Amino acid sequence: MSQPLRLGIAGLGTVGIGVLRILRQHAALLEARTGRRLEITAVSARDKSKDRGISLASYAWEADPVALAQRDDIDVFVELIGGEEGPAKDAVEAALSKGKDVVTANKALLAIHGQALAEKAEADGRALRYEAAVAGGIPVIKALTEGLAGNAVTRVMGVMNGSCNYILTRMETAGLSYDEVFAEADALGYLEADPQLDVGGIDAAHKLAILSSLAFGTKVDFAGITLEGIDRVSIDDIRAAADMGYKIKLLGVAQQTARGLEQRMQPCLVPATSPLGQLDGGTNMVVLEGDAVGQIVLRGPGAGEGPTASAVLSDICDLARGFSGPVFGLPATTLETSQPATAALPASYYLRMSLHDKPGALAKIATVLGEAGVSIDRMRQYGHDETAAPVLIVTHKTTPAAIADALAAMQDTAVLSGDPVALRIEDV
Amino acid sequence: MSQPLRLGIAGLGTVGIGVLRILRQHAALLEARTGRRLEITAVSARDKSKDRGISLASYAWEADPVALAQRDDIDVFVELIGGEEGPAKDAVEAALSKGKDVVTANKALLAIHGQALAEKAEADGRALRYEAAVAGGIPVIKALTEGLAGNAVTRVMGVMNGSCNYILTRMETAGLSYDEVFAEADALGYLEADPQLDVGGIDAAHKLAILSSLAFGTKVDFAGITLEGIDRVSIDDIRAAADMGYKIKLLGVAQQTARGLEQRMQPCLVPATSPLGQLDGGTNMVVLEGDAVGQIVLRGPGAGEGPTASAVLSDICDLARGFSGPVFGLPATTLETSQPATAALPASYYLRMSLHDKPGALAKIATVLGEAGVSIDRMRQYGHDETAAPVLIVTHKTTPAAIADALAAMQDTAVLSGDPVALRIEDV
Repeated sequence: MSQPLRLGIAGLGTVGIGVLRILRQHAALLEARTGRRLEITAVSARDKSKDRGISLASYAWEADPVALAQRDDIDVFVELIGGEEGPAKDAVEAALSKGKDVVTANKALLAIHGQALAEKAEADGRALRYEAAVAGGIPVIKALTEGLAGNAVTRVMGVMNGSCNYILTRMETAGLSYDEVFAEADALGYLEADPQLDVGGIDAAHKLAILSSLAFGTKVDFAGITLEGIDRVSIDDIRAAADMGYKIKLLGVAQQTARGLEQRMQPCLVPATSPLGQLDGGTNMVVLEGDAVGQIVLRGPGAGEGPTASAVLSDICDLARGFSGPVFGLPATTLETSQPATAALPASYYLRMSLHDKPGALAKIATVLGEAGVSIDRMRQYGHDETAAPVLIVTHKTTPAAIADALAAMQDTAVLSGDPVALRIEDV
Repeated sequence: MSQPLRLGIAGLGTVGIGVLRILRQHAALLEARTGRRLEITAVSARDKSKDRGISLASYAWEADPVALAQRDDIDVFVELIGGEEGPAKDAVEAALSKGKDVVTANKALLAIHGQALAEKAEADGRALRYEAAVAGGIPVIKALTEGLAGNAVTRVMGVMNGSCNYILTRMETAGLSYDEVFAEADALGYLEADPQLDVGGIDAAHKLAILSSLAFGTKVDFAGITLEGIDRVSIDDIRAAADMGYKIKLLGVAQQTARGLEQRMQPCLVPATSPLGQLDGGTNMVVLEGDAVGQIVLRGPGAGEGPTASAVLSDICDLARGFSGPVFGLPATTLETSQPATAALPASYYLRMSLHDKPGALAKIATVLGEAGVSIDRMRQYGHDETAAPVLIVTHKTTPAAIADALAAMQDTAVLSGDPVALRIEDV
């Protein structure tokens, strides 16, 4: 039997404790599966005295995660502290410098500093693994880099923030406004300390940046993502989209186009009958498309103690088995700098507007759309109150620029009551 | 750069040609991803002269796959011949004896001879990989053995024969009988030369046997599967199930129970709104459940040139990267002999029967069910013709034995017109 794999675990929040629990509960199973004993040598967290419901007495304690990362008696440093700067980053760098392999669940760290860390890890001949950083318990990093290794990836999509999907689902099922459900979710502890990480789409965009690099062989480029959160999604749009056969999802999409790498995280409409459209509540879904395989859809819990710890264990077991490759699938120094696409690919759009109730109003809107080169696939006008009539339009495929032109021109028609809404309809 | 990985490919049908195409088209990408050149040294098939739309001139030709498997100038033998006996088995054994790693897409071979082959491979220190054998392009072997390595697996389920799912879906959407759609599918070339492999559930059961071994650390036990095909599923049941909110799927289920390892491949009802219920047409779906991760659902193409070749390439790339472990996740000599469960776990059942139109008929049925300990959750009686009334019943959870008792007792009531139908409703 080989030497044990000695682990140092920094960060004993929900995920860290989940990892400890699995390592203790399944010690014999993990040893049988990997051929090595997985040994916890030392741990680190902010507060040693806190009751975590699990005894830490058999592990060395380090108050400082950097000191933990540098210990001679660990082989793998497991970073579960979080945050793109500060102790998490310092400790990961220290571990790599000391010749340790690193496992982390830190999407922000990877999305912002991934390229530098990958270059450092590979220069030192070390592994940096992060299955838990994207879509929680879904083994999507492995599916993409290993399962689809024979494919040129053509597109990656995903609903990767459970809190946003919970909010959108709850708005629809309870008929509540965004503000009402946001307050509810916040009270239930479903949101990050800084809720903009969730509802602003930042957390999901961190994940998309990582997947995008793996899929297209480009340097991780968080700044290149077109980012829009869910805070402007209204219950009116959720209802109207449902009437037209769609759901609204905070959808991340990355694809290589002739005009550069397109990376978007924004509320989109998807067909209600598609797997993405049927994804309710806090569950995550990632869609991988490759030239050979076609479309693979992965669905599972995107957060929580067990699922995230499961993903961390996947990385640890791979290291125990001696499985490891370049951090982003290709040697970091060969990754290309991405060329952000100048514009998104053409798509159908959903338009919702309110028209003053006077003759010729709809004709003016139709004329404006036609002049912008936007053709109408389906249109629906609803019963209306005394002054304004709600109108829904689904366009044929058109460019984002044409939609922007049309929206601008509509403002000059004097038939709109309030601002029109335009949302992209993603082909899924 | 390391030495190239030299491949010998036996079997140049759809999948074999797909593998050749990817190796040629993505040669540079595969080398960048794995750090090794993937080189096709020699190929073998039954007919050298057949036009396969791709030149084989640069590869050595072997008429005999065993000779190919034994060539000194190959490192990996890729078996894409198929069939549980004969040349496929002979060649795989020859390759292992000669110290070659093996990649195969052959589910029958693994399901029947997997244990012996695994022992042989591991005794020789060789790898035997088979991602393409289960659920085509879905990287489910990898997800289960590596992605969920930190979990005790609690249940594995799947719709793993696209032809069966196509037939059931087409019956429902076109309102056709099983025989009509079977004839259609056969004419379209959707079925195996021996259609019983598909519609009898054998092909899907081969896949279930493999997943079951990986999930529960048991020797692959195809003979231990309770097997029932789709040939007795009627359009009446598909319609009635839909009325009650269910779909009928040929569903494989494996779970470890207190009464042994339960492995079933049979037509089951699943909620129409569940991911399995929403799986239409030839697509496959595998559901993996683990104690830490909860439920993961994987969906994708289960057959075809590109998807199957994609899975074969995943194995080849893993070998090029030096990733390999025991054939069934644990050392073959430590796998336990499975104890087939004496009975399936309790479940709700769907019952459909036709009652003679006379007073007290329904009361007799209800009495019989009550006496067998089966309680009724929902019941629906339909408008009827002059002599018989269709009745649907969904029971509360009960044992298969209680259902069998009730069905037997019903025969003595003299109120039934024709045989009653009972189908299990799977909790998904």
